[in-house]
Amino acid sequence: MVSYDLLAGLSAASADLGETLDKILPRANGQIEQRLFQAMRYSTLGEGKRLRPFLVLSSASLFKVSRHSALRVAAAVEMVHSYSLIHDDLPAMDDDDLRRGKPSCHKQFDEATAILAGDALLTQAFEVLADEDTHPDPRVCTDLVRALARAAGPHGMVGGQMIDLAGEGQSLDQAQVTHLHLLKTGRMFAFACEAGAILGKAPKSIRMALRSYAHDMGLAFQIKDDLLDVEASSEELGKTAGKDIDQDKSTFVKLLGLEQARDQAKMLCDQAINHLSCFDDEAEPLRAVARFVVERGR
Amino acid sequence: MVSYDLLAGLSAASADLGETLDKILPRANGQIEQRLFQAMRYSTLGEGKRLRPFLVLSSASLFKVSRHSALRVAAAVEMVHSYSLIHDDLPAMDDDDLRRGKPSCHKQFDEATAILAGDALLTQAFEVLADEDTHPDPRVCTDLVRALARAAGPHGMVGGQMIDLAGEGQSLDQAQVTHLHLLKTGRMFAFACEAGAILGKAPKSIRMALRSYAHDMGLAFQIKDDLLDVEASSEELGKTAGKDIDQDKSTFVKLLGLEQARDQAKMLCDQAINHLSCFDDEAEPLRAVARFVVERGR
Repeated sequence: MVSYDLLAGLSAASADLGETLDKILPRANGQIEQRLFQAMRYSTLGEGKRLRPFLVLSSASLFKVSRHSALRVAAAVEMVHSYSLIHDDLPAMDDDDLRRGKPSCHKQFDEATAILAGDALLTQAFEVLADEDTHPDPRVCTDLVRALARAAGPHGMVGGQMIDLAGEGQSLDQAQVTHLHLLKTGRMFAFACEAGAILGKAPKSIRMALRSYAHDMGLAFQIKDDLLDVEASSEELGKTAGKDIDQDKSTFVKLLGLEQARDQAKMLCDQAINHLSCFDDEAEPLRAVARFVVERGR
Repeated sequence: MVSYDLLAGLSAASADLGETLDKILPRANGQIEQRLFQAMRYSTLGEGKRLRPFLVLSSASLFKVSRHSALRVAAAVEMVHSYSLIHDDLPAMDDDDLRRGKPSCHKQFDEATAILAGDALLTQAFEVLADEDTHPDPRVCTDLVRALARAAGPHGMVGGQMIDLAGEGQSLDQAQVTHLHLLKTGRMFAFACEAGAILGKAPKSIRMALRSYAHDMGLAFQIKDDLLDVEASSEELGKTAGKDIDQDKSTFVKLLGLEQARDQAKMLCDQAINHLSCFDDEAEPLRAVARFVVERGR
């Protein structure tokens, strides 16, 4: 086993991704609608772990995919992630004033601009995936579009967000909370990991191994998020903390207790890494992500 | 010239489209997230002119495209149109309580559900276009995805909506209002018309002719909308009328006056029909649409 420096890897990926996003996103240039472009950039180009793009780049590198293709798909994934955060933060949804230590999009701009910026990011992400500059084979592009739409749509991220909202005030059991997070965050993690395999035209079994890795890692990520939400103070986390408990949401911590939630996250991390047994050292970045997800501190 | 019965054509198209949408849209079945599916269906399956799907079907029939392919693309266009209406009606946007004579989505459900239903419809529309069931040639699918994303994205419909919001309270000149509507409604009309040509793998010059038709027809449509907004009462129009004037928006009627706005709409209608000179009788449905757009009553 090689020792992989995850933080250096994340940081390098984030820098490259920033450049790619800067080229893709529309530029404010005195147009009447420039406020829209500013909001899209504000919410996408800021700081952030950029874990999902890193997963795209790491999975793509398993199949020797060109960095250019991988970066464009990573950018599309980050645009969809940013759109989801913008809409989730709206007053009618989670009503969060802070995001990544900055005012959330609707606080920095206004609600209408935030709704439109989210819509525009989601739409443009599909334009990026369908572009031959992303991959010359149109079959690869349609595979990417279809997989992203499924991951983000009514049976994916948006469906998960609906369960999250509908579940407020009623108590969900562990199976329901697991299903919620599989949809809300797991499907997009799975797309990010599968995207590299799609770009590399990998066989179905390999695609499934990467999806399984992502599902377990994503669930571990969510449990850790619940743990951090309880443990962290507002300042340290950069978003309003303790909200889930205030809103009486069903979290893993509430269902399992702190101790068992920690064990569960650890178990899922090991399971995620097991799914990567078909890969050699080249999958070290993905293994490091799984470890990081449960070990990251407050 | 054959005489084409537009109302019969619209009605037949609308029935077929309803069936296609019913198959595509997720079905409420007791899931926790079924409210999302109900909202998607509520806003997409209701009454409505369904002019955009009709344009897809009419342009597709110029190139002997299979009805199945055309209906799926028409469904995607209607889903994107419905999403845009749902988001436009939100309190933070145009704040409309009525849509097509029914409570708008956020009134029937709630704001969060309306935001998510719009997001889900937009996302699923791309899944439909990228599916080989829509067209077996992936190059056709990527063309469709890219063209729709451009029509609906920051340089299309969403950009137009931003101009519309940013332009409130400041007076836009005629060029700016024309640009606004070219983006806000024209680009989606253009996609609907171009879609048939993409499905039929028509040469670029034919694609451009259909786009030009759509741009002129779309602008005529918007001017007529402005005229109807002034003329119609709330009850007859099925949405809150006179809003544009209340909100001090720059409309064609305000810029040109009633008389000249009517002349302009008529002129654009003729110009739109001229763009169809490369087609024979098979383009009668599109010519009839252009005439209908300016002649429709209150």
